[in-house]
Amino acid sequence: MPEFQNILDNICAQAKTTHDKGKVASYIPQLACMDINKFGIALLDQNGVLYSAGDTKDKFSIQSISKVLTLSLAFELLGEQLWNRVGVEPSGDPFNHLSLLEQENGKPRNPLINAGAIVVADVLVSQLRNPKQDLLEYVRKIAHDPTIAYDKSVAKSEKETGFRNYAAAYLIKSFGNLENEVETVLDFYFHQCSLSMSCEQLAYTFYVFANRGKCLKQTSYLNLSQVKRINAIMLSCGFYDEAGEFAYEVGLPGKSGVGGGIVAVHPNSFSVAAWSPGLNEKGNSKLGLQALEKLTTESGLSIF
Amino acid sequence: MPEFQNILDNICAQAKTTHDKGKVASYIPQLACMDINKFGIALLDQNGVLYSAGDTKDKFSIQSISKVLTLSLAFELLGEQLWNRVGVEPSGDPFNHLSLLEQENGKPRNPLINAGAIVVADVLVSQLRNPKQDLLEYVRKIAHDPTIAYDKSVAKSEKETGFRNYAAAYLIKSFGNLENEVETVLDFYFHQCSLSMSCEQLAYTFYVFANRGKCLKQTSYLNLSQVKRINAIMLSCGFYDEAGEFAYEVGLPGKSGVGGGIVAVHPNSFSVAAWSPGLNEKGNSKLGLQALEKLTTESGLSIF
Amino acid sequence: MPEFQNILDNICAQAKTTHDKGKVASYIPQLACMDINKFGIALLDQNGVLYSAGDTKDKFSIQSISKVLTLSLAFELLGEQLWNRVGVEPSGDPFNHLSLLEQENGKPRNPLINAGAIVVADVLVSQLRNPKQDLLEYVRKIAHDPTIAYDKSVAKSEKETGFRNYAAAYLIKSFGNLENEVETVLDFYFHQCSLSMSCEQLAYTFYVFANRGKCLKQTSYLNLSQVKRINAIMLSCGFYDEAGEFAYEVGLPGKSGVGGGIVAVHPNSFSVAAWSPGLNEKGNSKLGLQALEKLTTESGLSIF
Amino acid sequence: MPEFQNILDNICAQAKTTHDKGKVASYIPQLACMDINKFGIALLDQNGVLYSAGDTKDKFSIQSISKVLTLSLAFELLGEQLWNRVGVEPSGDPFNHLSLLEQENGKPRNPLINAGAIVVADVLVSQLRNPKQDLLEYVRKIAHDPTIAYDKSVAKSEKETGFRNYAAAYLIKSFGNLENEVETVLDFYFHQCSLSMSCEQLAYTFYVFANRGKCLKQTSYLNLSQVKRINAIMLSCGFYDEAGEFAYEVGLPGKSGVGGGIVAVHPNSFSVAAWSPGLNEKGNSKLGLQALEKLTTESGLSIF
Repeated sequence: MPEFQNILDNICAQAKTTHDKGKVASYIPQLACMDINKFGIALLDQNGVLYSAGDTKDKFSIQSISKVLTLSLAFELLGEQLWNRVGVEPSGDPFNHLSLLEQENGKPRNPLINAGAIVVADVLVSQLRNPKQDLLEYVRKIAHDPTIAYDKSVAKSEKETGFRNYAAAYLIKSFGNLENEVETVLDFYFHQCSLSMSCEQLAYTFYVFANRGKCLKQTSYLNLSQVKRINAIMLSCGFYDEAGEFAYEVGLPGKSGVGGGIVAVHPNSFSVAAWSPGLNEKGNSKLGLQALEKLTTESGLSIF
Repeated sequence: MPEFQNILDNICAQAKTTHDKGKVASYIPQLACMDINKFGIALLDQNGVLYSAGDTKDKFSIQSISKVLTLSLAFELLGEQLWNRVGVEPSGDPFNHLSLLEQENGKPRNPLINAGAIVVADVLVSQLRNPKQDLLEYVRKIAHDPTIAYDKSVAKSEKETGFRNYAAAYLIKSFGNLENEVETVLDFYFHQCSLSMSCEQLAYTFYVFANRGKCLKQTSYLNLSQVKRINAIMLSCGFYDEAGEFAYEVGLPGKSGVGGGIVAVHPNSFSVAAWSPGLNEKGNSKLGLQALEKLTTESGLSIF
Repeated sequence: MPEFQNILDNICAQAKTTHDKGKVASYIPQLACMDINKFGIALLDQNGVLYSAGDTKDKFSIQSISKVLTLSLAFELLGEQLWNRVGVEPSGDPFNHLSLLEQENGKPRNPLINAGAIVVADVLVSQLRNPKQDLLEYVRKIAHDPTIAYDKSVAKSEKETGFRNYAAAYLIKSFGNLENEVETVLDFYFHQCSLSMSCEQLAYTFYVFANRGKCLKQTSYLNLSQVKRINAIMLSCGFYDEAGEFAYEVGLPGKSGVGGGIVAVHPNSFSVAAWSPGLNEKGNSKLGLQALEKLTTESGLSIF
Repeated sequence: MPEFQNILDNICAQAKTTHDKGKVASYIPQLACMDINKFGIALLDQNGVLYSAGDTKDKFSIQSISKVLTLSLAFELLGEQLWNRVGVEPSGDPFNHLSLLEQENGKPRNPLINAGAIVVADVLVSQLRNPKQDLLEYVRKIAHDPTIAYDKSVAKSEKETGFRNYAAAYLIKSFGNLENEVETVLDFYFHQCSLSMSCEQLAYTFYVFANRGKCLKQTSYLNLSQVKRINAIMLSCGFYDEAGEFAYEVGLPGKSGVGGGIVAVHPNSFSVAAWSPGLNEKGNSKLGLQALEKLTTESGLSIF
């Protein structure tokens, strides 16, 4: 059994002294103003013991990490029918490319690229009574933390500048794969992305994917088959056009967000969340990736 | 511990009675004449116990499964330098598309698509003294079976009809990513694809990827880090544009060939090879896929 | 000198008895209800003599033909600067593909595909005081016909179903190549497409491109160099992915619309407009194309 | 009637003093060693009067200009059937891209891109008794010049480095659109590209396209309809992804070659050939383009 605390401390010490921390996302002011020197990593092992190092209680915008949570909820509600609307294949393309979407008649490659997450958001808008509130409750329940909230100013900024997402949503709608109004779906989508969480909260939330579908209090959210499938999708598609690289270097199912967060799970072993606002060229947290690579190397825990 | 023999027997019984067996590959006579009713599955557990059901001693053309073996040998010889020549990302495209290759300046997405395997073949032609003989010895040694051989008539047929592979090789060469003559590289490539093996031989061969780089006699071929990486690539890229689907449905690193073979490994648990000549629309063995899905479902063994 | 009236009469007689008239556009009710048996052709020779045959006074939605008129006005206002915003190359793709737009960073290939016309509309929204009214006055003046009007119900329907155009506009905006709000630009764009005109009115309007930039009353709208350039663009890009075919079969600069109209000009000889609501597979009027092909074949007048 | 000699003298004087002459093609030694200071322009008017300025008797490799000549011969031999094998649409892509070819199942967009010319070459290899000799005779006859010859060293060099053309040919063959062996077709193709001619010889040769299909001695090679169609294709497709730009700036059907030559015709008026070895970024002669633009501007002769 690896000594997680030691490993995390080492990772954190190294991260804090690394010179090249990447570049903070700058397309909205709320992200641009993040402190590039922040770094945190929190790991929750299978027995519910939490290990932390660095700024693990700081909240940040989880952005695309939210796509796993909406996928989870939509999968729970719709089951295998979901795959009539969105695929499970890696996209082989940067996260915002519409070409593939057009070529494949408005059915996004997978639920973890923007276009796919927009379709999943549409499913939730159709299925839920109060979509934004219901999603929030869902996340709070899994995480056992009623303080989790949207950052409204982030959602508002995204809305004002998210032209590419509007383009994707309208393109999907032109192919008949969006049931609701574009404005309604994107309002929901921009809110989910604005979820503000800490590394610790993320580790508690993603425990459900490491623990066969059950949260820390053993409430069941997904059955084993569903969890495996979501983990498979995270592994294949969680890092845009760096998914193969992540599988290769880290070897865990995971998902990153442009706010600098990365989560990963080792089935039956642990969930982990790292955070550092600086991104590499492909939009994934630079130090976060290094942290997870070091974690699997030093702990010897990879699914491969 | 699952009772593998029971599971394999059930899988085999079901396969033998399944009506829709897909379509046998028809582009060369040697493949077209395979008996669509053949089915076999062989599993080698970590302790070296072999479980078999069906036609597991019949030899067939392993075709693209050979790409994992050449990758393994090239990785052993070149180490991380290999990635200067070929990537590790899923292609998100059918196996023979040149578009991406052109767009990305002749560096193939990964070593398990045709273009990538041609680059790997070029590496081996440069590195080995007698490329075809040396590869054969390598495979025989891993498998502990000196009877494994090329099927020269298959290699010859491929050469006469493999225009798409010639197109890929020349395109790669036009970008300066092929050191040797196209004819030489493809002669080697068509030979590797023509390797004729049975399910049992494949299970023995791929044991090395399930057993941390060591063959059944515990000779080490790859270090642990290298094995993990090859497994990660198999999971991300082993099934062309059905890679995500395979990860989703089966949840194991694996590789298929147009001869109807499929291999997969569960790290630290087992290697397995299934064979049925009928292919689905994406060129993967129809019953082979179903067999592996059933195996992971019934055994509860998936990496996710 | 060809006897235009005879030729037009023959063309009309033949069109009226042709069985396969193509398919009426059905994406909005206002187009779907057009009578497929309608056919008209009107030609205005250089001396201002009008020749007509068939339903040449019936009004129809000119749709994409309007793109030449907005291009003309924008070119007049902005001059060569216009080409910083939009190219002059054929797209080699069906009229609604976004892939190219994304690949080329939001600068549309040419002003006669939808994306390019949206950029031109944006230019006019920026440049004109009352864009919709000013464009209407411009067209009325060139045509010497104050009765020309928008069909508001067509504009409204397009707005409600034009998701692909919204996608294009937002994609362009995401690249910073749209100055105004998407809603404002598309409101203008859908209005220009809804211009309701007859073959005779179109022949009078397009006389300006056949007559070196001067209308029938010899008022100058464009200089000779500008007219040549617009004619060149019509020839290269006027028929989406059938542009080469039109150049090949007809050999005149021209433009079609999904309402079934086609205009063409022979510099220094004539302008012509044909109309038949049935479209071929590529969205161009089936009988209209045949009519123009017959016209150039029988008159011996092609620019080649 | 414009005074051609004056215009050509001015063009030549200006070209000789222009500083930025572009870059000489360097992919084979025979092209790389051309003197960048060379410039010539020769025009043959409808009455057969020749006007020349600069190095109009220097021979150079006509390269892709030959595609019009093989198209002409193949069209003569096969008629409209030719279009079953190759299209007439502009490609909207640089001259060597294979993506479109793959997407469109091996039917090249038009006969003036490399892939299309390779299909035309295949037609001639099938149709002619001694393909290379017969083509040479055909060109000599049209030009009334028995000294025209292939430059064998150029053909040989192209063969040794033309990997992209091999890739295109094999891709076409994989789709069943090449009747002969790749080696045979490309041997012919590389020879046609190596035709060595002067501006004056080219002006005489292309007179046939300006003179309704008849050469200077009034022998008929193509009927009027065929000439118009070839001219239309030259206008739409003669300059790769700069075709629209050429139509826009020059307004004549034409064709360029990587040896620095450009030909153009004004139907019923003249044929013209310019030459300057320096190319612009898109592979067309930089000074040649400027020369033709100046010619149509100063003479007022454009087809638009």
